[in-house]
Amino acid sequence: MITHYQITLLPEHETRIFPEWGYHLYSSLLSLTPHGFGERMHSNGVTPLSSCITVQDKQVIWHVNLLGADSEAVLAPIIEQQDRYWLRRENQSLHVNTMQIEHIDSADTLLQLPEHRTMKLRFLTPTTFKSDGSYVNLPSVPLIMRNLLNKWNGCFAEVCPIEDEDGEGIQAIANGLRIAEYRLSSRDYLLKGQSIPGFTGELTLKCRLDGFHLTMANLLLHFAPYAGVGIKTALGMGGVTCK
Amino acid sequence: MITHYQITLLPEHETRIFPEWGYHLYSSLLSLTPHGFGERMHSNGVTPLSSCITVQDKQVIWHVNLLGADSEAVLAPIIEQQDRYWLRRENQSLHVNTMQIEHIDSADTLLQLPEHRTMKLRFLTPTTFKSDGSYVNLPSVPLIMRNLLNKWNGCFAEVCPIEDEDGEGIQAIANGLRIAEYRLSSRDYLLKGQSIPGFTGELTLKCRLDGFHLTMANLLLHFAPYAGVGIKTALGMGGVTCK
Repeated sequence: MITHYQITLLPEHETRIFPEWGYHLYSSLLSLTPHGFGERMHSNGVTPLSSCITVQDKQVIWHVNLLGADSEAVLAPIIEQQDRYWLRRENQSLHVNTMQIEHIDSADTLLQLPEHRTMKLRFLTPTTFKSDGSYVNLPSVPLIMRNLLNKWNGCFAEVCPIEDEDGEGIQAIANGLRIAEYRLSSRDYLLKGQSIPGFTGELTLKCRLDGFHLTMANLLLHFAPYAGVGIKTALGMGGVTCK
Repeated sequence: MITHYQITLLPEHETRIFPEWGYHLYSSLLSLTPHGFGERMHSNGVTPLSSCITVQDKQVIWHVNLLGADSEAVLAPIIEQQDRYWLRRENQSLHVNTMQIEHIDSADTLLQLPEHRTMKLRFLTPTTFKSDGSYVNLPSVPLIMRNLLNKWNGCFAEVCPIEDEDGEGIQAIANGLRIAEYRLSSRDYLLKGQSIPGFTGELTLKCRLDGFHLTMANLLLHFAPYAGVGIKTALGMGGVTCK
């Protein structure tokens, strides 16, 4: 259902590392897939992969999540065999140093995680939403929760859909969550020569939901680190942790 | 039309100064007014006064704005004569050290200020909005601009109203402004034993309006430092600068 990779990559020569490398690494990975796979993956509006990079001790940490069987079938063998990635724009290769793999076999694994009434989301890479045709570079609870539901159903509609055709369920969940604390800054993401307005930082959600809605809120927020939050999460935006 | 005071106050004995002193100073000022004035001032939903404190070099800087003739008639003589304020809750008095006074006689003064396409709002004291009965502790362009319009018309409806009965004018203005950059943190404000969720920080608005809408956007944003932004701006919340 979900395969999560945490891959440390060593740059061939020392250089400043940008979050935008997430996009370059994604392109590098896609260039290794069979012809037509890239187009197929972007066909239903939700890409069954999220990826982003963080930096620790001059090492690039590449977080890649494969969401669903199709994505796993094609990409897992490539990722697990590849020992270096070529960054065309940076004109250097990154050597795979270590690789941690986590498998989540079913939604039950996420549902069995402890239910929290307080969850802190950290936005590690620039995050943004799209609403009414425009970028929205400030978060809101409805934007976060609707985005996560769309991602869930975009990836897992056939195996374990969350049914909410009129959007009332997710609205009820959003109404029961509030942003209690936050520290957020605008931060653009450069993509194909375009500057996409986003933000990084952290926020704490407090929950006054019960029963099924509490369970669903927790499921979607536990899903967030695998799916990313907002748009262009395959291309390195919207990388989050949730604790 | 508007009288702005910037008063430096020296605490009788050294102590930590909180933004909530804005509320205590407002109470202290109100206790000096004739019986019934306080109730009258809060009668139409928009208080014709904003006040907040900032701190510089262990001195309290009290910013007080009197909005409209009624407020000026009663409060200006009191403020200009008073040489100390008693803070009951802090059990100490604050001595008036210096007082700067600025008069704005008509809207023309604000309209003659240069029109900008980029304006930075700094939220000096915790700022919050109320929407649909709930506190909203993250800003948005429509929340900011509608709040400023309501304040303007609440104070100056008789002398120079901005007519926009169906709200379409202010929506058009909001649509032409976007939050380009920001750095914001949640910050609560303690009021009468209640913790009100707000935020401080700064944001830059970029404007793609023209003509009358550009003029109105500039007027309202130039008005923001006098009016404050959001709710409870008489009580020390929503103190802003705009540059």
